[in-house]
Amino acid sequence: VTSESSFIALMRSLATDPAARNLLDDAAVIDLGNETLILTHDMLAEGVHWLPLADPADVAWKLVSVNLSDLAAKGARPLGVLLGFMLGDSDWDRHFAEGLKRVIEHYGAPLLGGDTVSNRGDKRALGLTAIGAATHKPVPSRAGARAGDVLYVTGTLGDALAGFELVEAGLEPPDMLSADRMASASKACFEIDITAIPLSAAYRAYRGDSRDSRLQAASWGDDYQLLFTAPEGAPLPVPAMAVGRVVEGAGLALFDGAERLPLPPTLGYQHG
Amino acid sequence: VTSESSFIALMRSLATDPAARNLLDDAAVIDLGNETLILTHDMLAEGVHWLPLADPADVAWKLVSVNLSDLAAKGARPLGVLLGFMLGDSDWDRHFAEGLKRVIEHYGAPLLGGDTVSNRGDKRALGLTAIGAATHKPVPSRAGARAGDVLYVTGTLGDALAGFELVEAGLEPPDMLSADRMASASKACFEIDITAIPLSAAYRAYRGDSRDSRLQAASWGDDYQLLFTAPEGAPLPVPAMAVGRVVEGAGLALFDGAERLPLPPTLGYQHG
Repeated sequence: VTSESSFIALMRSLATDPAARNLLDDAAVIDLGNETLILTHDMLAEGVHWLPLADPADVAWKLVSVNLSDLAAKGARPLGVLLGFMLGDSDWDRHFAEGLKRVIEHYGAPLLGGDTVSNRGDKRALGLTAIGAATHKPVPSRAGARAGDVLYVTGTLGDALAGFELVEAGLEPPDMLSADRMASASKACFEIDITAIPLSAAYRAYRGDSRDSRLQAASWGDDYQLLFTAPEGAPLPVPAMAVGRVVEGAGLALFDGAERLPLPPTLGYQHG
Repeated sequence: VTSESSFIALMRSLATDPAARNLLDDAAVIDLGNETLILTHDMLAEGVHWLPLADPADVAWKLVSVNLSDLAAKGARPLGVLLGFMLGDSDWDRHFAEGLKRVIEHYGAPLLGGDTVSNRGDKRALGLTAIGAATHKPVPSRAGARAGDVLYVTGTLGDALAGFELVEAGLEPPDMLSADRMASASKACFEIDITAIPLSAAYRAYRGDSRDSRLQAASWGDDYQLLFTAPEGAPLPVPAMAVGRVVEGAGLALFDGAERLPLPPTLGYQHG
């Protein structure tokens, strides 16, 4: 048991309000008047979620994307964001602010507030809270998949892995985590055909489309695509590609066409 | 110009949405459907906002209080909080979690979500987002004071200063900041009679009720009392004591009874 998982277990024991969804989803869902709010807070830490030499504008983009993808997964339109910023080198801070301006304008998620603290030489950690309004109800949940549903992904996977490796080699690529969490919450088994996993042309050129390449693209994460299920034949709310189906059972089952594959040792990147 | 004030100026240039109130208030105000949301995010940093030997449960209490006082200043009832937590020593983390449980139960502000990152030996920084629903409209603003209003405070000041000094001596006590910010936002002058500033019995016993003692109690901050104005004779929504009045002009004017006092060099504690 890591200190992180034991702390999260403590937090889960406090998070008894139904809006917290037992911390099993990545966002809280609050019914208020005739609206439903979606709230999420994600942090990024230097050296864990970004490399020291990363462009600060890219860090801003990632910080906002991580949070807005949680809203998107709930079908919410963003109302705005609050920034928790650790000050440091003023050039870094200014480039971060420029990146922040671009990303919040791109996604139409206005900056509403936040706070700053000085970091006095420590590695930086940044936090962002995103708030959104549900566009339809019920709000999608990780526990909503049903046997017979088709599993979809909204875009190509692997570019984040390739980008990372081009900057720094030597880390094990270890997100089929998302699919595993949905399967677990839905008490169902997700069968994924790795030959159906969409790869960008750039990723194919970088690593090819071998079984290993596809498994790695699917297990790295950080691509900020949505994974969702829908009944077979149902009209889709967004363009997406089928990558598998939901069956009775538990966990993930991977296939390369007809061939059943062993599960990789880890299903997603676990931060050290 | 500090790097913090220049960063905040950059953020203000981004925060053009009316809900951000130009970052002049401590909370964002979002109209949604038939409700009005209040959102705030405040951070605490080890060594800046708490001493390394502080009880982690007290740090949790302060982190929640700082944010809920921003909601209270807007007359909002809390809907819940999201925690951004930097993991470290697991005993510290556990005691923090125990304190968090007590404070969120005390204030009825359920934990709805958040995120954790490992801190790997750095000084910790913690963030909390609080969301509330307005209980009446218009939502009070710092800019709402009018000449002729009476200035009120909801409780005694000075205990935070005394507590801090009993733990660590040697820092200049420097929050009349709040009053100054309200006066500035309202384009009015706040006259404060320091003899009317309520002091707790414990603070009087610690430091006495001299002019210096009263000035220090009023300029330290961290007491989490509310400062507000109301027209003379208006019924008050909460028990409060009159400490001054609003007149035409700008800034603060301090009096010891009838005697006009010079302003102290700083109006509140400025974090280094």
